[in-house]
Amino acid sequence: MTDIGVEAGRDLIASDRVEGTAVFNLAGEKLGHISNFMVEKRGGQVRYATLSFGGFLGIGNDHYPLPWSMLDYDVDKGGYVVDLSKEVLEKAPSHNAENRPDYDENYGRSVYQYYGLVYPW
Amino acid sequence: MTDIGVEAGRDLIASDRVEGTAVFNLAGEKLGHISNFMVEKRGGQVRYATLSFGGFLGIGNDHYPLPWSMLDYDVDKGGYVVDLSKEVLEKAPSHNAENRPDYDENYGRSVYQYYGLVYPW
Repeated sequence: MTDIGVEAGRDLIASDRVEGTAVFNLAGEKLGHISNFMVEKRGGQVRYATLSFGGFLGIGNDHYPLPWSMLDYDVDKGGYVVDLSKEVLEKAPSHNAENRPDYDENYGRSVYQYYGLVYPW
Repeated sequence: MTDIGVEAGRDLIASDRVEGTAVFNLAGEKLGHISNFMVEKRGGQVRYATLSFGGFLGIGNDHYPLPWSMLDYDVDKGGYVVDLSKEVLEKAPSHNAENRPDYDENYGRSVYQYYGLVYPW
């Protein structure tokens, strides 16, 4: 039984199991995978999972921060499902791996706003 | 400037920067490094960082879950500092990488109890 959904007990999941996990949209299209996530240093709250799909020859902005609340794990698919079309994703806030911006309040608000979510902090 | 403390802005840190970061105790002894951490699937709260130091030939229980609240990042040391002697750590709850236990309530309570902390969930 290597089901990621129960791998570490009912409620918790190991970071190294999240990283690399596939991300699909509601249409079943694979959007990419989770490369890492952004955590509050003090409180330990995960704010964003970073969706990646590998740019052409590694060039380009291929890191897309998604608010953690957007992700649902689907046991049958073996990956996360988000309500996100490829067209919406293409224009979403993104950066490349080497030039990670400050994830400050302004950046956070722009990400939440893009996805139509209320910035909760 | 590759200072981990400011690498991702003031408040957030990337998971791939936490993983591999050294852990010291108050006496300045290096205890090991963070190998990964355990996250609430739904809420995204990090509950434990896993301290590892690599057993002999990879054998043995070398994964020690530490409540996230025990960790303080020290910019000067370039790593996390915990109030934890080697003697206390040696007898702490641990497991090996391949046999991760269910991180259920019983396990969580045993970890918190060992470190003299109130289990907050």
